[in-house]
Parts: sequence; C-alpha cells; structure tokens
Amino acid sequence: MKFIRKIIETRSKKDEDFIADLKKIIGFTPKKVEFYKKAFIHRSIKKFNKETGHPINYERLEFLGDAMLSAVIASYLFQEVPTGDEGYLTQMRSKIVSREHLNELGRDFGLIRFVQSNVAKSKFGENIHGNIFEALIGAIYLDRGYLACKKFIFKRVIDPYVDVPKLEGKITSYKSLFIEWCQKNKKDFEYNFYEDTGNDSLKHFSVKLKLDGKIIAKGRATSKKKAEEIASKRAYYAFQKQITDN
Amino acid sequence: MKFIRKIIETRSKKDEDFIADLKKIIGFTPKKVEFYKKAFIHRSIKKFNKETGHPINYERLEFLGDAMLSAVIASYLFQEVPTGDEGYLTQMRSKIVSREHLNELGRDFGLIRFVQSNVAKSKFGENIHGNIFEALIGAIYLDRGYLACKKFIFKRVIDPYVDVPKLEGKITSYKSLFIEWCQKNKKDFEYNFYEDTGNDSLKHFSVKLKLDGKIIAKGRATSKKKAEEIASKRAYYAFQKQITDN
Repeated sequence: MKFIRKIIETRSKKDEDFIADLKKIIGFTPKKVEFYKKAFIHRSIKKFNKETGHPINYERLEFLGDAMLSAVIASYLFQEVPTGDEGYLTQMRSKIVSREHLNELGRDFGLIRFVQSNVAKSKFGENIHGNIFEALIGAIYLDRGYLACKKFIFKRVIDPYVDVPKLEGKITSYKSLFIEWCQKNKKDFEYNFYEDTGNDSLKHFSVKLKLDGKIIAKGRATSKKKAEEIASKRAYYAFQKQITDN
Repeated sequence: MKFIRKIIETRSKKDEDFIADLKKIIGFTPKKVEFYKKAFIHRSIKKFNKETGHPINYERLEFLGDAMLSAVIASYLFQEVPTGDEGYLTQMRSKIVSREHLNELGRDFGLIRFVQSNVAKSKFGENIHGNIFEALIGAIYLDRGYLACKKFIFKRVIDPYVDVPKLEGKITSYKSLFIEWCQKNKKDFEYNFYEDTGNDSLKHFSVKLKLDGKIIAKGRATSKKKAEEIASKRAYYAFQKQITDN
C-alpha cells in the first residue's frame, strides 16, 4: 500500500491529466507512464539521454509499434481469410497499414494534442499522425506486452475500420449498395444523424438508418461519413440475401 | 482421460516419429500437429481444401511466421540497443532476417527432411530452407501463441547466432581478433575439434580453445567454423580488457 501511494504521489497533475486522457483512447490505465510520454516527444525537442547522449524521441517506439501492428494484422488476416494465399495476405496488409490509413487513425484520435515539440504543429506533415499512432502501439507493447497490444489493435483498428470485402475492392461502398437496392425495390430510406460524443474524448457521430420508417441499423464513428457506412454495412449484412438476390 | 487416449490413438506411427523429431528442434511437444505438418507441404503436392478448393501448402504460414519473426527481432533490438535510432534498428533487423541468414538456419536444422513435395528436393532453390523455417515459426504461433514463438526465436535464432557488434561490421571475426592478440603477445593457442551431436537431431561440433595449454573457452554449433567463432567470442569477452588494451 505504502509503495502504491508513493507512486501515485510522485505523479504530477499534468501526468494525471495525460493518463486520464490517454485512458479514453487505449482503454486501460498505463502501468509505466514514461513509455507513453516518450511516444509523443518530437525530435525537435532535442532531448538526450544523460548517460549515453543518444536522442530521446518517439522514433524508436514507432519502429517497434510498426512491427507489432504488422504482426497483429498478419495474424488477423491469416484467421479471417482462410482462402487467401500469401500474395493476397501481403497485399491486404499493405492496404490496412498504409501511411494514409494510419494517418487517418492518428488524426481521428487527436493524438497530436499530446505531442511535445519545438516547431509549430501546423508545420508537421501529414505523416506525424500515423507515426505517433505507431509509437503509441510500441508504448503499449512495452507497458503491457503482446496480448494487450493485440487487443488495442483489434478494438481501435480492426473492429471499427477493417473490412475485407471493401479492401478487396469488391464493395466500394455499402451505402451505395444499400441505396441502389432501395431504389430498385421502391423502399423509402432515411439517415438520421446526431452528435454522440458522450464520455468519449473524441467527437463522435451516430446515425439511425430507417427503412420504410422503421429503424433497421445504427452506426457510430468519428465522422458522419464513417457512421453512415457502418450503419449501411450492418443493414447490408442484415438484408444480404434480399440485396444480392436482386 | 478417455478423450486424451482417443487423440493419442488416432496419431499414426508416422505422426509420432514426426513429433519426436520436431520436438528436438522446437523444444516442446506440439499441441496441434496439423499446423506443423502444413508448414512442410510444398505447393507441388497440389493439395486442396475440400470445401473451399483453395490450395494447402506452407506459403500462408510463411507469411505469418515472417511477421512474427520481424516483430520479435524488433522487440529484441529495441531492448538490446537502447542507443540505436530507427534507421539503425531497421538496418540491423534486415541483416538478421536476411534471406541468406534464414536459409542458413533452415539448412542447419535440416528442415528439408520434413518437406512433402512432388518435385525432387535437389530441384528446390536455396530459399526453400528459409521459407520453411518461417513457416515453422508461423505454426508455433498458431499452436502456442506469441510468447512461445518469441521463446523459440530467442533459443534458435538470437542466442546462438545474433551478435550485434558483428552485424554492425565493427568486428568481422572474433577468431581473427583473438589470434592477432595471441601472436602479438607470443601466446600459444590451439583449437581442438570433435564431433558432439549427442542426443541432438542435428550434427554438432564442439571445440576446446586452449591458451598456453589451458582450456579457456568452448564452443558448440552445427559447423566447425561456427563452433570456432563461438569459442573465440567467449575468449574475446573473457579477455576483453587485455585484448583491447593491446
């Protein structure tokens, strides 16, 4: 007890705020906050290790996080697509861990608010978002190990955003598939949006999708477009037989 | 009990031999032997899944194993070289997981004896050795998870063969360093080799390194050259102060 109290007491108010904010994104309380702080130190800070003189910034963690992300996505695809050959799996993984996709994830979580730097944030290129997202994954690995890292990646990357048929290009948009079917079958549809941030640290939107006046699916995400696509996908899978029989 | 007996009974003699042989390499008894069998099925066998029609061979497992190997080596280097930046870590990893090095590992374990194929083994290119070594890592991941996979990679790749100063090119050979020092200091040295396979499934050699008639280091590996280098490295580290002061 004494030991625990000591740890808590040595944490500053600033650290406590950082931990509380971070917890909303990672879903658990960090054990060693130092790993996470390092994930957001930009090289422009020019921080160096006192003993060895080597620079301290998020770049090493980015290397580690990138490797863990690749491994977790590989194991996910291996299980998810039992019929895909090596070339297919490699290609799908590249799409999921593309610079563009990682930047989008980092941006959605607003990770840039944690970054410490000596240059204006407006001067950063787009890649900073993806880089610190990978560094965060590296910090989670160091703090909690592979399984926690895998759980985080499933919760924040795979479950909400990875959609194999869409990545394959077989389906470009579930919304367009759904609307097409409604029009062909003379059904009324309606997407009703509302802001739904709740206790989340990130702004969220929800949508209710109505078919002939009845709510048939809901979606919630960090943008209206994404929420809409999630609801459409759910509707698509619920009505799949009817839609593909068309 | 009844269930366990049933599993054991359904294993053929051939499977039992495969498991016993494999155990010497992986260091534990496989839970699901099917994963490991698949790691050695060459595409020329033309085996297909009865339901989906997709080919069954080691290539998917190779993809998975490659990802796990990269992740484990990344986490090893991250911890081992705290002063290395992202570029350094990336470069070191490439050297460790180079096609050439993986082929050497697969060849040392004699993994090719497990391969089922419809082409003569002499027709395979060199890369088959590294590919099935990666597939074996994939099978271990599926059977036992990340930690067992990490343990295997440390035991069979990192501990015996990964040597950061050598990879950096700072030291090309511990043997030459050691001999140079002996000559300069007029010391007698002698490498005494003997075959030392023991209960191992792979042929092994041992060497005793004598300095002025006294054994100062030993080495054991799958070739004389490697055993010699291991013993020299041990001697180098034991006498490091004296050697570098020269």
